[in-house]
Amino acid sequence: MRFLPVTGYHRDVMVFKKITLIGTSDESFDAATENAIDRAEETIDNVKWVEVDTLGVEVASVEGREYQAEVTVAFELEE
Amino acid sequence: MRFLPVTGYHRDVMVFKKITLIGTSDESFDAATENAIDRAEETIDNVKWVEVDTLGVEVASVEGREYQAEVTVAFELEE
Amino acid sequence: MRFLPVTGYHRDVMVFKKITLIGTSDESFDAATENAIDRAEETIDNVKWVEVDTLGVEVASVEGREYQAEVTVAFELEE
Amino acid sequence: MRFLPVTGYHRDVMVFKKITLIGTSDESFDAATENAIDRAEETIDNVKWVEVDTLGVEVASVEGREYQAEVTVAFELEE
Amino acid sequence: MRFLPVTGYHRDVMVFKKITLIGTSDESFDAATENAIDRAEETIDNVKWVEVDTLGVEVASVEGREYQAEVTVAFELEE
Amino acid sequence: MRFLPVTGYHRDVMVFKKITLIGTSDESFDAATENAIDRAEETIDNVKWVEVDTLGVEVASVEGREYQAEVTVAFELEE
Amino acid sequence: MRFLPVTGYHRDVMVFKKITLIGTSDESFDAATENAIDRAEETIDNVKWVEVDTLGVEVASVEGREYQAEVTVAFELEE
Amino acid sequence: MRFLPVTGYHRDVMVFKKITLIGTSDESFDAATENAIDRAEETIDNVKWVEVDTLGVEVASVEGREYQAEVTVAFELEE
Amino acid sequence: MRFLPVTGYHRDVMVFKKITLIGTSDESFDAATENAIDRAEETIDNVKWVEVDTLGVEVASVEGREYQAEVTVAFELEE
Amino acid sequence: MRFLPVTGYHRDVMVFKKITLIGTSDESFDAATENAIDRAEETIDNVKWVEVDTLGVEVASVEGREYQAEVTVAFELEE
Amino acid sequence: MRFLPVTGYHRDVMVFKKITLIGTSDESFDAATENAIDRAEETIDNVKWVEVDTLGVEVASVEGREYQAEVTVAFELEE
Amino acid sequence: MRFLPVTGYHRDVMVFKKITLIGTSDESFDAATENAIDRAEETIDNVKWVEVDTLGVEVASVEGREYQAEVTVAFELEE
Repeated sequence: MRFLPVTGYHRDVMVFKKITLIGTSDESFDAATENAIDRAEETIDNVKWVEVDTLGVEVASVEGREYQAEVTVAFELEE
Repeated sequence: MRFLPVTGYHRDVMVFKKITLIGTSDESFDAATENAIDRAEETIDNVKWVEVDTLGVEVASVEGREYQAEVTVAFELEE
Repeated sequence: MRFLPVTGYHRDVMVFKKITLIGTSDESFDAATENAIDRAEETIDNVKWVEVDTLGVEVASVEGREYQAEVTVAFELEE
Repeated sequence: MRFLPVTGYHRDVMVFKKITLIGTSDESFDAATENAIDRAEETIDNVKWVEVDTLGVEVASVEGREYQAEVTVAFELEE
Repeated sequence: MRFLPVTGYHRDVMVFKKITLIGTSDESFDAATENAIDRAEETIDNVKWVEVDTLGVEVASVEGREYQAEVTVAFELEE
Repeated sequence: MRFLPVTGYHRDVMVFKKITLIGTSDESFDAATENAIDRAEETIDNVKWVEVDTLGVEVASVEGREYQAEVTVAFELEE
Repeated sequence: MRFLPVTGYHRDVMVFKKITLIGTSDESFDAATENAIDRAEETIDNVKWVEVDTLGVEVASVEGREYQAEVTVAFELEE
Repeated sequence: MRFLPVTGYHRDVMVFKKITLIGTSDESFDAATENAIDRAEETIDNVKWVEVDTLGVEVASVEGREYQAEVTVAFELEE
Repeated sequence: MRFLPVTGYHRDVMVFKKITLIGTSDESFDAATENAIDRAEETIDNVKWVEVDTLGVEVASVEGREYQAEVTVAFELEE
Repeated sequence: MRFLPVTGYHRDVMVFKKITLIGTSDESFDAATENAIDRAEETIDNVKWVEVDTLGVEVASVEGREYQAEVTVAFELEE
Repeated sequence: MRFLPVTGYHRDVMVFKKITLIGTSDESFDAATENAIDRAEETIDNVKWVEVDTLGVEVASVEGREYQAEVTVAFELEE
Repeated sequence: MRFLPVTGYHRDVMVFKKITLIGTSDESFDAATENAIDRAEETIDNVKWVEVDTLGVEVASVEGREYQAEVTVAFELEE
């Protein structure tokens, strides 16, 4: 059982939600991760942190190579 | 492969959805779990069951200690 | 770390989202999976692929037996 | 921590037991699963649900192919 | 590979068996766990320890909420 | 999903059951495994194979060291 | 630690090799699995058994839906 | 790949260390967890959070029952 | 059960094979991954995608540090 | 959630710590495990039990073969 | 994410490949592992190390008992 | 059972220890990993290799984004 303690923004009762996104990039795993976070922040307020679930590279259907990162994005639900 | 058989509210074809929440509490793991369920039921109809994914305790940024529970909430999609 | 490379529909930056559904059927695991996909496509555009997470059978509360499939549905977020 | 909430047949305190069976079939994974459930119901009362643990195919020692399903069978213990 | 060393009741050769139970309670995860242990001890001698496998909460088919604990019970086989 | 194909003793429909035992030995992991199998065969017919789940060593409560093996024993259910 | 005991074709020392394949089918998971096995048997002698690793469905790039099965194929190495 | 983002106490470069403890209690899982944290804080500065790894109950060698919690304690290394 | 849907290059029946490689680099995890893919493409046709299994750094036997990436390479089997 | 109940040396509140070691041996897996335990006992009091995490064999850089065992060593913290 | 750092035989860019074998022996787990390594070295150059994946014992189809070890063999690809 | 063969610095009996650290960086996952290794080498002799356990990104409590890497550091114990 791995746990994700939420630290540093305490109120009496807090509730967070998590969603799963996959970002892509022609440059690097770092950029693929950043792209997924950018997209999350366009539509979600209060994004708190991101967990990297998996990394991969698409080879066949792209020129060059395409880095991909599946990430879990956590954000706080407003009261 | 762990499975989650859905039992007891049968119709011909049922579809359920699952989301991930993290609840917190100053009291206990039980209360942290309950707080996440309470929050789910405020905005979602037909909450059916909850799976506890992980438990943890925040120590540094709180007075006393803060129990935390990451849970998966399952609810039935209306037709 | 298992990865899910997204292949075949390349653009410069793509972002996908994943949700978890459970479908049921009186016929087969294949049909339980299909029912979950059908439901996803009724409300979500751009469904791309589905991963089967778990399979099970409800015995007690149904006549005959009810096949169940928990699946992860991936769809592309529009820009 | 994946959880198996037991739903739909409530009494004040309920206790369930789980056992592991492997069923085989010359026809399909569905039938291999069904055969394991059939066998469980011959000797156990109150079978409630079944989780599919693993699927496989025996090739070498059979004519044609033999589908196999390892399943966990859950039943309620009588008071 | 996680191991469960058996300590403190040594004889030359000991053999233990494990079974899986699910206990329920209207009060707490602790009580759901205790109820499963109580039930095990009614019919099994030499219960030694219990491992908590999963925790969950049934919401839909009960008044209030029902805590559930799936546990593995270990007991020594008599010679 | 790891699978355990059952091979070499084919009949039309076969059903196997699995149980979990822990064997101990003052000599070796091999002997701890063998002791668990020996115990299974004393009371169960048709033991087919054994999977080693975990290995460990008890240090504190024994003289010398005690090897331990948690194993899953599979046997065929008679028709 | 899950184990795959090899049974029923004993010689003094046997060595098996495993490879991973993904089969597809427009019909069913069973057929996707069979297609992978068929392909294995075209080029490999002594295929013994197959473990199903994962199941999925391609939705976007096909007409209808495409069942997919990732499997591990085990075969005996000749002396 | 589950991740543990460290949030809320930012400096340019931070390094954290994790250790594993098991706490016990005659009262509850909550107390067993608290006892492990108490012990950590007696000898370690800057304890930040705790992840619950596993829960269990000792039955045989105690009067009543003994709750046990294996936890991972995270603390910041001073520069 | 994590699945790897194969998308975007549909034919009636497709079969893919996967192999495991470890690439190294003095520069970055990205480059270690790329080096493994480069090596795969030198000898294998039809490389489709790559899953990153694990990342690591060799410290002792190199000057500076050596990034390492264990990856699974998937390629299509020709008919 | 696998649990490691601590049995047989009860006091009101006990706290245990775990560390990870890798032992090697030219003889056997048993000896590699024993060597790691021996090393732990040279510097740590109150070693209670050992869990075997992984086993392996080094081939390239040794004459003959070198058995290796990664183990988790548990010991009780003194009050 | 478990990692397998490759140490001690450094060149600028190294690439390793891994395959899965199952060895058997009438004597011990150590010998079953050794037999798989022996077989690998007969046909593969540059075998570097071996990871033990699973251990098991065949009971039904052999006289006495047959130890089995599924191992992953890593070897360096020549340039 | 994943294994970490220790290669390339052979002596008759070697014992290694592993600890878990989390490193952070404003630049990249590579740098977060490096920072954890740097910190380990300041206080520990004989650091041999590092396994990357998890990656993540802190978003809420930092300007820009903070890359984080949880790593396992292995070092040899001196005799």
